[in-house]
Amino acid sequence: MKELILNLIEQGKYADAKNEIIKMNVVDIAQLFEELEQQKLLVVFRILPKETAAGVFSYISNDLQRYIIESITDKEIKTILDELFFDDAIDFLEEMPSNVVKRVLKNTDEGTRKLINHFLNYPEYSAGSIMTIEYVDLKKEMTVVQAIKHIKQTGIDKEAIHTCYVTDEFRKLEGVVSLRKLILSEDDVLVKDVMKTETIFVNTHDDQEKIAALFKKYDLLSMPVVDNEQRLVGILTIDDIVDIIDQENTEDFEKMAAMQPSEEEYLKTNAFVLAKHRITWLVILMISATFTGNIIRKFDAVLQSVVILTSFIPMLMDTGGNAGSQSSTLIIRGLALGEINLKDFFRVLWKELQVSLLVGTALSLLNFIRIYYFEKIDFYVSVTVCITLFFTVILAKIVGGILPILAKRIKVDPALMAGPLITTIVDAVTLVIYFSTAKILLGI
Amino acid sequence: MKELILNLIEQGKYADAKNEIIKMNVVDIAQLFEELEQQKLLVVFRILPKETAAGVFSYISNDLQRYIIESITDKEIKTILDELFFDDAIDFLEEMPSNVVKRVLKNTDEGTRKLINHFLNYPEYSAGSIMTIEYVDLKKEMTVVQAIKHIKQTGIDKEAIHTCYVTDEFRKLEGVVSLRKLILSEDDVLVKDVMKTETIFVNTHDDQEKIAALFKKYDLLSMPVVDNEQRLVGILTIDDIVDIIDQENTEDFEKMAAMQPSEEEYLKTNAFVLAKHRITWLVILMISATFTGNIIRKFDAVLQSVVILTSFIPMLMDTGGNAGSQSSTLIIRGLALGEINLKDFFRVLWKELQVSLLVGTALSLLNFIRIYYFEKIDFYVSVTVCITLFFTVILAKIVGGILPILAKRIKVDPALMAGPLITTIVDAVTLVIYFSTAKILLGI
Repeated sequence: MKELILNLIEQGKYADAKNEIIKMNVVDIAQLFEELEQQKLLVVFRILPKETAAGVFSYISNDLQRYIIESITDKEIKTILDELFFDDAIDFLEEMPSNVVKRVLKNTDEGTRKLINHFLNYPEYSAGSIMTIEYVDLKKEMTVVQAIKHIKQTGIDKEAIHTCYVTDEFRKLEGVVSLRKLILSEDDVLVKDVMKTETIFVNTHDDQEKIAALFKKYDLLSMPVVDNEQRLVGILTIDDIVDIIDQENTEDFEKMAAMQPSEEEYLKTNAFVLAKHRITWLVILMISATFTGNIIRKFDAVLQSVVILTSFIPMLMDTGGNAGSQSSTLIIRGLALGEINLKDFFRVLWKELQVSLLVGTALSLLNFIRIYYFEKIDFYVSVTVCITLFFTVILAKIVGGILPILAKRIKVDPALMAGPLITTIVDAVTLVIYFSTAKILLGI
Repeated sequence: MKELILNLIEQGKYADAKNEIIKMNVVDIAQLFEELEQQKLLVVFRILPKETAAGVFSYISNDLQRYIIESITDKEIKTILDELFFDDAIDFLEEMPSNVVKRVLKNTDEGTRKLINHFLNYPEYSAGSIMTIEYVDLKKEMTVVQAIKHIKQTGIDKEAIHTCYVTDEFRKLEGVVSLRKLILSEDDVLVKDVMKTETIFVNTHDDQEKIAALFKKYDLLSMPVVDNEQRLVGILTIDDIVDIIDQENTEDFEKMAAMQPSEEEYLKTNAFVLAKHRITWLVILMISATFTGNIIRKFDAVLQSVVILTSFIPMLMDTGGNAGSQSSTLIIRGLALGEINLKDFFRVLWKELQVSLLVGTALSLLNFIRIYYFEKIDFYVSVTVCITLFFTVILAKIVGGILPILAKRIKVDPALMAGPLITTIVDAVTLVIYFSTAKILLGI
């Protein structure tokens, strides 16, 4: 299919190509566009039906969007803008440089221009910046048949008509009613008798993380957005929320791996930007490893008398790090999904204590068998290593379990704080336990 | 609100409590239920309108579901089952022990029983196990007005009527049409003229990860599921997909932190199960740290002549581990979101090489200043540490970048393989570089 179309375009048979292309989903057409030469792309873009062209436009990369806007006429810009869903238009404009935005705004009527400018001023990641204004509003005194007629008249340009919003004369939100409910109700029932009044809504300035949590909690398909005077100003739809969920998850992955979160795709980010996002934490962690170095230097008499002790340092540190990150990952994830709350502090502490006793005992015994019986290491050295291992696992799991909750309590992002700090704490304490035990047991 | 209701229940004023409860969202009622005493819960459950009761039932925990089913009469079971959406009923039955399932099935008619048994046999995480059968099907020769009439007659029990499915006489899927499109079309237009025929669908046995990816790619709200003969057997809706996206992400988090993935919530899992999920990888990693120990023992002459070298081992290992996990996290995430593919191997390699040269140079220089000028460490020791640091960062980033892609190429889960293996490889190679450089530069 794709090969065929590319061939037709190659041969200049644009009309034939168009007939094949319009059978495809706009998402797939957008993918095809990314592979075309720019001049050919422009020809194909221009022969597409305007509705399809607008759909494709909202799915292509920012670079291609910019190229197209800079290559087409003002009249064509206006056509695309009229066809684009409002929130897609905002998404696109947010990514464009100011000269492109200016040129696009020049080609819209004054009302739209004002509205777009208003939208571009909402804080990033807020409900206002994600919402669409293309919703259907009804009045509560309408009958079902009037409501459906109103939807038929005004719904054609609306992105979401599955849920309709009931507002009063001051545009204040009074309730919601699904198209399903309207269709299934008798013709002469009033909207106010079928609408739901306990509506879940957000404010324009609410953060996307909160919004995504509400969508998930209540299994919503859309949600109204109101301003500070409770007036309905837009709606959020589930398809945008799915993207946000992925974005928030990516952010957590990046923070837990000690990076500054980035919105750009990896392959589209240049090496300098990638390096910048990574170096801050590497420097902080490198410098904090000075503590560990100092501890080793303080105990170098111990290491010099029993050289073999050094060879267990990597194993002890790695196991501590792994044990701690297991716990912190589970807790950070639980906090993010709302499965664990601040009040669960002592439950988490107790659970991690139990788990760490089990895991610590098992690992220590196994390790003792391994190093004393198989590697024939001195008995007291083996005991020293295993005692340290036992306490390291307990410490790592408890620190890993409670640090994310403490972070959240002092309103620091758990993902950001926990990972790096845990390693440093666990490393340092492990070494102190190791050398102190060695001093006592080996009589150094 | 919640306090008020709890008070009313406490005082035995159930009718008043009911009046307050029915104003709430079923999700919130379910949360309230988790806080009630069991006998009181049963009273409240029984006085709720049956539709609300079924909604609440689908949101409470498995323990409560089981308690309720075991406490109510057969007739009540039948009522709940009739009201539950089919996919919620399946979700609930999948979690129940077989005696409860038997009792529930006893209270359904034969057709439903067969259907439920059929559903319970789909592989876990497959489209068949997630789908619902409550969809509206239309025929292509219907007019719009006939179609809407059909929806009105049959839609009342359907979970999703926003998208309708057009099937032929053999139940084969022919196309989809949205309720929106039907409402906005003229009365006498035929369904076949407004339906979309290039439908995105999945097979009953397709995995949920693939399904979630399709929903995201095409911004779908629902998707048809067909059997091997292309017959429509059910539909998937976006609210279930949102849960799956979170579930898949949690799995990746757990695998990357060296744990066996688990579906249970943390607080609901007992310590033995948690310990079991964590210990396997800890043992594997502990044993693989033997390599690092052996390397240190092999070079103990070096450490004994220049004791200070030991104190930099933790810093070198930690920085290597952090640098590697930064890279592997970005690549694993990119692979999971489909932003990076197998064919990008060399692009990733090249990018990580550039980033690691930048980061490695910066870290080494910074570290040299820190240890030579501030900590007054010997010049050649400082150089040894910094050279090792430089190569460790490069190695860690390249291994972290390409290992996940290699894992995917040999069809191993990148999240599972990459994290643990990277640490072991980087640790071992770092130490070899460190001691070799020391031998040359310090003339040991």
